[in-house]
Amino acid sequence: MDERKIPYKIYLEENEMPKNWYNLRADMKNKPAPLVNPGTGKPLTAEELSPIFCEELVAQELDDTNPFIEIPEEIRDFYKMYRPSPLVRAYCLEKKLQTPAKIYYKFEGNNTSGSHKLNSAIAQAYYAKKQGLKGVTTETGAGQWGTALSMACSYFDLDCKVYMVKVSYEQKPFRREVMRTYGASVVPSPSETTEIGKKILAEHPGTTGSLGCAISEAVEVATKNPGYRYVLGSVLNQVLLHQSVIGLETKAALDKYDIHPDIIIGCAGGGSNLGGLIAPFMGEKLKGNADYRIVAVEPASCPSFTRGTFAYDFCDTGMICPLAKMYTLGSSFIPSANHAGGLRFHGMSTTLSQLYHDGYMEAVSVEQTSVFEAAEQFARVEGILPAPESSHAIRVAIDEALKCKETGEEKTIVFGLTGTGYFDLVAYEKYNNGEMSDVIPTDEDIAASIAKLPKVE
Amino acid sequence: MDERKIPYKIYLEENEMPKNWYNLRADMKNKPAPLVNPGTGKPLTAEELSPIFCEELVAQELDDTNPFIEIPEEIRDFYKMYRPSPLVRAYCLEKKLQTPAKIYYKFEGNNTSGSHKLNSAIAQAYYAKKQGLKGVTTETGAGQWGTALSMACSYFDLDCKVYMVKVSYEQKPFRREVMRTYGASVVPSPSETTEIGKKILAEHPGTTGSLGCAISEAVEVATKNPGYRYVLGSVLNQVLLHQSVIGLETKAALDKYDIHPDIIIGCAGGGSNLGGLIAPFMGEKLKGNADYRIVAVEPASCPSFTRGTFAYDFCDTGMICPLAKMYTLGSSFIPSANHAGGLRFHGMSTTLSQLYHDGYMEAVSVEQTSVFEAAEQFARVEGILPAPESSHAIRVAIDEALKCKETGEEKTIVFGLTGTGYFDLVAYEKYNNGEMSDVIPTDEDIAASIAKLPKVE
Repeated sequence: MDERKIPYKIYLEENEMPKNWYNLRADMKNKPAPLVNPGTGKPLTAEELSPIFCEELVAQELDDTNPFIEIPEEIRDFYKMYRPSPLVRAYCLEKKLQTPAKIYYKFEGNNTSGSHKLNSAIAQAYYAKKQGLKGVTTETGAGQWGTALSMACSYFDLDCKVYMVKVSYEQKPFRREVMRTYGASVVPSPSETTEIGKKILAEHPGTTGSLGCAISEAVEVATKNPGYRYVLGSVLNQVLLHQSVIGLETKAALDKYDIHPDIIIGCAGGGSNLGGLIAPFMGEKLKGNADYRIVAVEPASCPSFTRGTFAYDFCDTGMICPLAKMYTLGSSFIPSANHAGGLRFHGMSTTLSQLYHDGYMEAVSVEQTSVFEAAEQFARVEGILPAPESSHAIRVAIDEALKCKETGEEKTIVFGLTGTGYFDLVAYEKYNNGEMSDVIPTDEDIAASIAKLPKVE
Repeated sequence: MDERKIPYKIYLEENEMPKNWYNLRADMKNKPAPLVNPGTGKPLTAEELSPIFCEELVAQELDDTNPFIEIPEEIRDFYKMYRPSPLVRAYCLEKKLQTPAKIYYKFEGNNTSGSHKLNSAIAQAYYAKKQGLKGVTTETGAGQWGTALSMACSYFDLDCKVYMVKVSYEQKPFRREVMRTYGASVVPSPSETTEIGKKILAEHPGTTGSLGCAISEAVEVATKNPGYRYVLGSVLNQVLLHQSVIGLETKAALDKYDIHPDIIIGCAGGGSNLGGLIAPFMGEKLKGNADYRIVAVEPASCPSFTRGTFAYDFCDTGMICPLAKMYTLGSSFIPSANHAGGLRFHGMSTTLSQLYHDGYMEAVSVEQTSVFEAAEQFARVEGILPAPESSHAIRVAIDEALKCKETGEEKTIVFGLTGTGYFDLVAYEKYNNGEMSDVIPTDEDIAASIAKLPKVE
């Protein structure tokens, strides 16, 4: 391929967009361990999951045999409004770094929710509508998922109840207003609208809430109100399935120009973006058809891959959700303040955890000051103000490109740019003012929360 | 053309992007009246303009004969990072409205500055760099222009001093932080850094500033510091020239699919977006090759086309800038609070004013509550949260589509969606809470400010 013929942005044509999601689990020899009912200690069945989740989503959650699942036409039509997302050749960043490496990024921020979360939100809303439900409930912390779900529900005319961690509700009023503009009801959590909320408020008056508590409220409302189900934006297999659209488009765009990546990099919180981005590449790797270095990047403040343990644990801090076998810091682990709210999760997708355990991918952790340094450098030459989460991947992509500069290698680096930083300017302000610091958990902190892991056979 | 073959989003290929800007004035029989020196009452010369503006920009400002001006390669490379912008077929909005009309919008919000302003900012920064300048100064109110200029200056490694109206500086800290992330120095105006600033602060302690004052400070700094010039984001001919890239891309995309628009709609503050969007269409109209309805949409709170007068006036409220012949409400006119900050300008581009005067375009004014109603309706089906400014065009596009529904006409409507509303959520919150109102100037208000117009032959 003549290098000069590769455009700054590669857009697929509408007819080149994926018609199926790719279910990576089907090609894994060691399947991810099943979700377990904390009461019985046994794998959760479809019957047990159906009162909480939509039926078709339960089926997707449990399906580890079918490699391709058709994307319904209604979802493909919605995707057409903001997809295909561009695969961008970072010519300006390469020039700035004076690296022989070729850097590409898949940019998922060109939609109003500002991130890749919309890819799964629209799918989950579609299945809820198809099941004849009235609405869905969810929780949101940083707000990307809540915003995406509000947009999706508005499109399918579904009621959307978002429990937003109180501290975010107060500190991120703009996120809240986007959700309200899309017709969602946004409730600061804990609230008086649920039994668990009342209980927590009685026990901890003045609490500013937590994700664990917001999950508990959202699940309670979904299970107590006929016609409602609960939906979640990360960690679950179904979410990684929907997010595979990122990787499928990326691979199709690379194949179109005969580009062969050497390194694929993504940030990892619960794993929704990373799992989606790498899916088809990992599929090829599992089949032995190609070799790629696949790198997960996590914050040093919440290093589940690099410093956690591979064991069954609760998915939520409230310990009401199913148990998942994953790399975890323990559900009682409280990460220090970090501005990448989307990466502050103690665990990791079971699929990614199994792949990491089996040696198919690497993981690194990076400190937030170096992440914002990379974000600023990227913004100034590539024009896009990145989300703090995404900037973790930028940091490592730049580091790898600088290694190429030293060795003279012309490696091809692909990373996921999951979203924009429009709603993260409090963090940028701290960085601009030189007030940002790094707090890294001690070995004792991690050992203490891991010691509290539940016992599962 | 088979309707089903028109994709949701039409992207031009890189090699289909414009290589020249289009200078509409070259094809106007009645040229826009020249800028006049308020001291001498005579047209401003290149010599008089050069201490304030960059040399090549002065040449562009005064050139009303060359129809095409080459876009330098460096600028085209930058454009490739965020352009071509998509021309979107609003299938979902059409369906929601149940209209036979075909609606398209050119979306300029997919870049970090969030609006079309970047198209001219990068050009102005390029010419400043080419002239060997150290930096540029400007003012910003709502912040779209300041953000765009900061990005452009960062790319070309130019110093960028932004005087930000103090009330915006305090109420829009996020805008400020984006600018700082791009390395700009942002000073709340009025400030102690200039003579005029000190004077105003002495006379009006505690003032929250005004655009007129911020302009005065920016111009003072540009003229007093060797190696600096002043740049402006709207109204001027040079800005409309650069923004013609919007219209050229739009026309190329329509032509590619053999689509013939009936109505072209844009919001109008100083005219930068509208002038750019309509340029090639108006050119065809002036030559008699095509007929289009071209509609300018302005806020009812600041109705320069629909209720102003066509006369020479100051471009700034501080009355230090050149005089321009334009539709104006008088430079002393103070528009009531309106959330479309980018449309709160008392005058209008001289080019657009002349065309409107000669009957080549229409204008309508709309009230902000109906604008936000349209914005919400659009956001919920098309997924994009629009800027309040852009939503003026949405309002009229929806109104025209609803007329088509009544008459059964299958008109093709094209409108400019200039930017996103991420930084306008205070306004959305007011609308969501039912606290937004409309304040429309009385005839007496307008007559009073028009009575103060300067006398020019």
